[in-house]
Amino acid sequence: MTAEHERAEREQAVTDEVLSGLEGAADPRVREVLQSLVRHLHSFAREVRLSEREWETAIAFLTRAGHLTDDRRQEFILLSDVLGLSMLTVAINAPASPTATEATVFGPFFVKDAPEVPLGGDLGRGAAGTPCYVSGQVRAVDGSPLGDARLDVWGADEDGFYDVQYADARSAGRGRLRTAPDGAYRFWTVLPTPYPIPHDGPVGDLLTAAGRGPMRPAHLHFKVAAPGHRTLITHIFMAGDPYLGSDAVFGVKRSLVVEADHHTGGRAPDGSHRQGAWASMHFDLVLAPDDNT
Amino acid sequence: MTAEHERAEREQAVTDEVLSGLEGAADPRVREVLQSLVRHLHSFAREVRLSEREWETAIAFLTRAGHLTDDRRQEFILLSDVLGLSMLTVAINAPASPTATEATVFGPFFVKDAPEVPLGGDLGRGAAGTPCYVSGQVRAVDGSPLGDARLDVWGADEDGFYDVQYADARSAGRGRLRTAPDGAYRFWTVLPTPYPIPHDGPVGDLLTAAGRGPMRPAHLHFKVAAPGHRTLITHIFMAGDPYLGSDAVFGVKRSLVVEADHHTGGRAPDGSHRQGAWASMHFDLVLAPDDNT
Repeated sequence: MTAEHERAEREQAVTDEVLSGLEGAADPRVREVLQSLVRHLHSFAREVRLSEREWETAIAFLTRAGHLTDDRRQEFILLSDVLGLSMLTVAINAPASPTATEATVFGPFFVKDAPEVPLGGDLGRGAAGTPCYVSGQVRAVDGSPLGDARLDVWGADEDGFYDVQYADARSAGRGRLRTAPDGAYRFWTVLPTPYPIPHDGPVGDLLTAAGRGPMRPAHLHFKVAAPGHRTLITHIFMAGDPYLGSDAVFGVKRSLVVEADHHTGGRAPDGSHRQGAWASMHFDLVLAPDDNT
Repeated sequence: MTAEHERAEREQAVTDEVLSGLEGAADPRVREVLQSLVRHLHSFAREVRLSEREWETAIAFLTRAGHLTDDRRQEFILLSDVLGLSMLTVAINAPASPTATEATVFGPFFVKDAPEVPLGGDLGRGAAGTPCYVSGQVRAVDGSPLGDARLDVWGADEDGFYDVQYADARSAGRGRLRTAPDGAYRFWTVLPTPYPIPHDGPVGDLLTAAGRGPMRPAHLHFKVAAPGHRTLITHIFMAGDPYLGSDAVFGVKRSLVVEADHHTGGRAPDGSHRQGAWASMHFDLVLAPDDNT
């Protein structure tokens, strides 16, 4: 037996011992997930011949990410995002309905129990930026309108920051509303702009080492829920954005890109008279049936 | 094309986009490691059909591990240990010399710049436990003795705790010493006992879910360095320990198990007169040549 073979056997023996140590997991799903994780993690380490220095770098990376993570900052979600694991998980769990609106990453900036906003109201609530009127219809894949569907919407201001990234505990640029009986939704917010994901931490260093930029194309987040339907988590992106082809988190889907109309003054679709620049966008949201109903 | 094929293509497209996004890494090693990591991480997620709930569990696990990690506690090393990644990294980086002493996991309890102890001195320094005299020789694979080699030794007390796990900033059960010109080393410490790895955190929960115990067989850590030789990081284990077959971190190698001799009173190998119970162990440490010299 060659030295090469002996080495391969010695390494395989480690993996086999760990896999056999996981045989006793009470829950078969836990066993399946952990054994698969160990097999793939070990295959990775063997394939790249992971050095001890690199292992130490990985431990230090995770430690730094953990220390940076708090109520305002989620470095592990960012890590999952820039490695494409978040988008892959979205793809794995996508509904079988090809006509439903496509999903994309959840991101780290969602807030539970955001303020309720009436239909047609302003969820910008003081966020800096160009006013933007967003409207559309929520419906099922068979075309029937979904009234009383719940929308959570959140977005960054014109400086590229979400409210939770400010130290002053403000709440702005986010809100919850319900669709009208005909499935229609409409609200004011601020026009999204491209922004960098937080890149002053280990994930930013990783992006730099990988030769990638931290920018995300401008987008507005939606979470849409209606009884009997799969909750949809998605964004709408702006046509013409320079970062559509290089999203740091790989979240862009062509079907989610919309044209924003740009206006100056005049009358908005809700009948209000505007002064200065404003924008408008229209996007319908189609929910897949819930697998479990 | 079937729905199954379409799904597989959609998922592969995510992986391909991420891999291509990593093509721009300036350092070819960074590119190699990150692309391999992405391939294996994505294969894992696809193989187990990772659910969104499971992804959230993983994010919460890493977050909790990060918040628990500080100067005294290293949950990410524990995670690497219980997944066998630490032992695999040891195996991947093992020297080609089959006659050198085998290496094992570093563990989270090493302290840089531990107190210097003279040859034959007591590095227990107040740690609770049965006094134990440890001796042996450090030599090269050709049998030549390695004088002035540096040994770092650390171990848990009879309650299963390392000094750094106590809140009172004590230093005990660890020390650095140098071998005599004939390669001999000798010191007093306390007899190691089996102990659980810290299991009140997410790694403990993982062990429970995996049906594994947190115990490690009794052992004493060694780090041995001599010019022109590969630094050896290893343990010695005690023959007869009930946990030799179920080490929580998969660190046991048969060649590292030694017989401890148990005594009551009498004269110790260093000529001192003992009262009460004490133990002695002998273990030679053989260093592989440094690849880089």
